[in-house]
Amino acid sequence: MDTLILASKSPRRREILKILNIPYIVFSTNNEEKIKEENTRYIRSLIIAISKKKVWDVARYFSNGLILGVDTAVCFNRRVLEKPENAQQAMKFLKMLSGNKHQVLSGITIKSASEDISYSSCSVTEVHFTKISDREMSQYIEQGEWAGKAGGYAIQGKAAIFVEKIIGSFYNVMGLPVEELYRLLNRFEYFTSSDIYRPVKKV
Amino acid sequence: MDTLILASKSPRRREILKILNIPYIVFSTNNEEKIKEENTRYIRSLIIAISKKKVWDVARYFSNGLILGVDTAVCFNRRVLEKPENAQQAMKFLKMLSGNKHQVLSGITIKSASEDISYSSCSVTEVHFTKISDREMSQYIEQGEWAGKAGGYAIQGKAAIFVEKIIGSFYNVMGLPVEELYRLLNRFEYFTSSDIYRPVKKV
Repeated sequence: MDTLILASKSPRRREILKILNIPYIVFSTNNEEKIKEENTRYIRSLIIAISKKKVWDVARYFSNGLILGVDTAVCFNRRVLEKPENAQQAMKFLKMLSGNKHQVLSGITIKSASEDISYSSCSVTEVHFTKISDREMSQYIEQGEWAGKAGGYAIQGKAAIFVEKIIGSFYNVMGLPVEELYRLLNRFEYFTSSDIYRPVKKV
Repeated sequence: MDTLILASKSPRRREILKILNIPYIVFSTNNEEKIKEENTRYIRSLIIAISKKKVWDVARYFSNGLILGVDTAVCFNRRVLEKPENAQQAMKFLKMLSGNKHQVLSGITIKSASEDISYSSCSVTEVHFTKISDREMSQYIEQGEWAGKAGGYAIQGKAAIFVEKIIGSFYNVMGLPVEELYRLLNRFEYFTSSDIYRPVKKV
């Protein structure tokens, strides 16, 4: 019954979910949520609210299972860096991040489809970039990895060489803080006493 | 000519090397280096020395190319935690790490096979584990991921859920600090001005 329903189309999130070795299905509506507010003052509340919206959008189609919604934001200098719209904007982002530190935040919400119970939380990772040369920037932008990535880079991809250090969760920067997810699933007593990697109830 | 020769049999290191998208070959002698000295006082010098030994063991078979040697150690409370010899020792390690922080260090050496030039460095990442329950420990040990891993765990595997936060490089904990490798390769002017992800000279 308690199958996990992932309200996200991100292939990276699916990849990370495999670590837990639990069955899940993907069901996502087409509403792409964007943070209109560029100011980061209320960013934690905002990304949790977006993760909730993703969950609630999907919840009405299910009467069983747990629905998981996630939203990730990249913040630099009190600004939210969205997915770049084009190469030019991606380059602008990379120039900002070069030689500086920024924050990656993920809001997670899990809701029971059958009951009125939900839990949310927010994970923050600080990411320090080295000074990136103009040549390295152009080459990174040219090969296109920036497309579809919040902040315009992928830590699990070629941008790995730009990362001096991180403070926090690596999987959060990839798009799904798996440790936090595990903790929230435990609040639903999702894992039995016999196996932490299998769900309590069969689907 | 400047092909990269990886003096390591680790599949994880090969996986990480793919990020740089450079051609490499694997050539490793059978000598498994172990840190006999359990005291961590000289650990940095020691793992750099081991990475050098791995390189020098291989260097005599090559007249061209760059040879890469890496050694990774897990240190807790002034002790080096090697690859566990059995499930019992793996459990002992996990009990030590639970609820505590430890350090993962990787020594890297790159040597030119044709010239007497080499560079070495050491990366350190601090890893904070959550408090792990007895049940979680037994289940982790049972499913066997500990085997062949320094310190008895894999951060890219199911042990991900035990990690509260890291400070430093994630890839270092996996076994090869790719950022540091990139920096050392640059000292050999390995990457051309036209492409940071391709070698200067063709093999």
